Amino acid sequence: MRPTMKDVASAAGVALKTVSRVVNDEPGVHPTTAERVREAIERLGYSRNESARMLRRGRTATIGLVIEDVADPFYAGLSRAVEGVVIEHGCLLLSGSSGEEPGRERELVETFCARRVDGLIVVPAGDDHTYLRSELEAGTPVVFADRPPGAGLDVDTVLADNVGGARQAVRHLMVHGHRRIAFLGDDPAIFTAAQRLRGYREELGGLFDARLVSMRPPSSGVIGDDLARMFALDDPPTALFTGNGRYTVTTLRALGGRRVALVGFDDFELADLLDPGVSVVAQDPSWMGRVAAEVLFRRLRGDVGPSEHLELPVRLVTRGSGELSPDQAGARG
Amino acid sequence: MRPTMKDVASAAGVALKTVSRVVNDEPGVHPTTAERVREAIERLGYSRNESARMLRRGRTATIGLVIEDVADPFYAGLSRAVEGVVIEHGCLLLSGSSGEEPGRERELVETFCARRVDGLIVVPAGDDHTYLRSELEAGTPVVFADRPPGAGLDVDTVLADNVGGARQAVRHLMVHGHRRIAFLGDDPAIFTAAQRLRGYREELGGLFDARLVSMRPPSSGVIGDDLARMFALDDPPTALFTGNGRYTVTTLRALGGRRVALVGFDDFELADLLDPGVSVVAQDPSWMGRVAAEVLFRRLRGDVGPSEHLELPVRLVTRGSGELSPDQAGARG
Repeated sequence: MRPTMKDVASAAGVALKTVSRVVNDEPGVHPTTAERVREAIERLGYSRNESARMLRRGRTATIGLVIEDVADPFYAGLSRAVEGVVIEHGCLLLSGSSGEEPGRERELVETFCARRVDGLIVVPAGDDHTYLRSELEAGTPVVFADRPPGAGLDVDTVLADNVGGARQAVRHLMVHGHRRIAFLGDDPAIFTAAQRLRGYREELGGLFDARLVSMRPPSSGVIGDDLARMFALDDPPTALFTGNGRYTVTTLRALGGRRVALVGFDDFELADLLDPGVSVVAQDPSWMGRVAAEVLFRRLRGDVGPSEHLELPVRLVTRGSGELSPDQAGARG
Repeated sequence: MRPTMKDVASAAGVALKTVSRVVNDEPGVHPTTAERVREAIERLGYSRNESARMLRRGRTATIGLVIEDVADPFYAGLSRAVEGVVIEHGCLLLSGSSGEEPGRERELVETFCARRVDGLIVVPAGDDHTYLRSELEAGTPVVFADRPPGAGLDVDTVLADNVGGARQAVRHLMVHGHRRIAFLGDDPAIFTAAQRLRGYREELGGLFDARLVSMRPPSSGVIGDDLARMFALDDPPTALFTGNGRYTVTTLRALGGRRVALVGFDDFELADLLDPGVSVVAQDPSWMGRVAAEVLFRRLRGDVGPSEHLELPVRLVTRGSGELSPDQAGARG
């Protein structure tokens, strides 16, 4: 159904090689002939198969991106930035969501590799990446973003300063007079969650109390139960540190208007419109995506230096919730 | 660098054809030999080039998706749903953001076509799609989502009930006693914006007043200026209908706590946490993505019936802001 180069050649009354020369901008075709060929191309609607052409040159000009979930605003921002860099380099982006399942991550990565993507950016769900070794040996560059690869794999990695950010959040709450600061976050098997717990714990020092830590799947019911348990303690928390954007929102919903100081990890769009505004430690997902993609293209251009381990700074944004004093906490807002 | 089938053959001490049979699960290889071949494949880290294999079969097993911006939650939700269906069908998703630029949309679509995607899902930025005609004639199915194609292109289309949704929003505000209802929305050159304006106007009938309509790029300053102008009228609006999620949020920010009844088109994550909760006419972007992808795969399976024009219902979600009476409007919240 689709017109071929042969169809163009016979429509223009020229040899196949002549068509090929015109299509590939090679010299040696008389301008009048070239014009006739171009006219036939236009009339028949011929277009060159770029996938076949790329493959003959040993590449696909596609980059594979594995994230947790494109519907999560953090990963949507990261994706958009990766896409921008990929397209600037004349490549296209294949992407897939692992849904936090290691098996799904591996399946996506292996599918991308079997399709011979030129390079990969991976936000891993699992912590065993030995399956990537043969692909790396075959020369496919891989950059890990947001979370590092499992043990034994030394590749370029772009992370946020999770420990530092958590310390900053807790310090901010302590400066405002809080001593009972709870942490609500994701499963500690997830790298970022574990790092933020570490920062929280390090900053609290002797004030750490395991009863004020809840690390469970982010469902509203579970967080509500854990908060109720904490608030029923003799010395309840007066401040909360939530481990990512999803936890912050779920926690705010579970609080149902109860006033308590709060700093969340990750910014989110309406944080300034809530009452009080929500103070956060903000990462920049676009920046992370851009940096990861730029490192990848540097490798594709032949950079064979030692692998890079970048840690992007985060910044505290104060909007009200993190500046409530212990006295202001507890009342209904 | 990457091991070839030949490398596997010589490592296993067998003929190339034998390796090919094992890799492609063809019969005629002795189990012991097959085992030796598989062992060599594992040891060398050989993997079949799926892109080359697909191309030999005249397909790429990739689907192209063009949206406005993957960082916009509506399109992120749509993308995730499309991705799910695409992967269920053993294909991969190439995606790109047009950023509301017709030239960028065309460039992405043409790049995807040159790469020979098996099918396309397009949220158009422009309204001239004659450039797609040769691709359609070549047999590539295309589904338009969220917005229809320009004149003269009859392809499958999945839209939301924009007119009906806008009418529902305005009717709801009228039922709560409002007669002065303003509309703030995107450029009417954008299909969905124009349709929502139409529904707004139809439902208002004789109450329509052009001074209460603002359709401009979604920047906070511009919306703030237009609101100030409207509120300075002798008969200012007591209710607002905002044309999409971005406008709702920007309008809420521009209102700076001023209480006014409001219904927005599109739901957004924190709508229930604001005070008052924001009433919306909700579309389901996942549903739209899934339906568009399913229609596409039906075409890929050979369905040659007349093109489908689906309109998905939307639903009103009441949370407080749309239920304020005219008396409650105007005060500072």
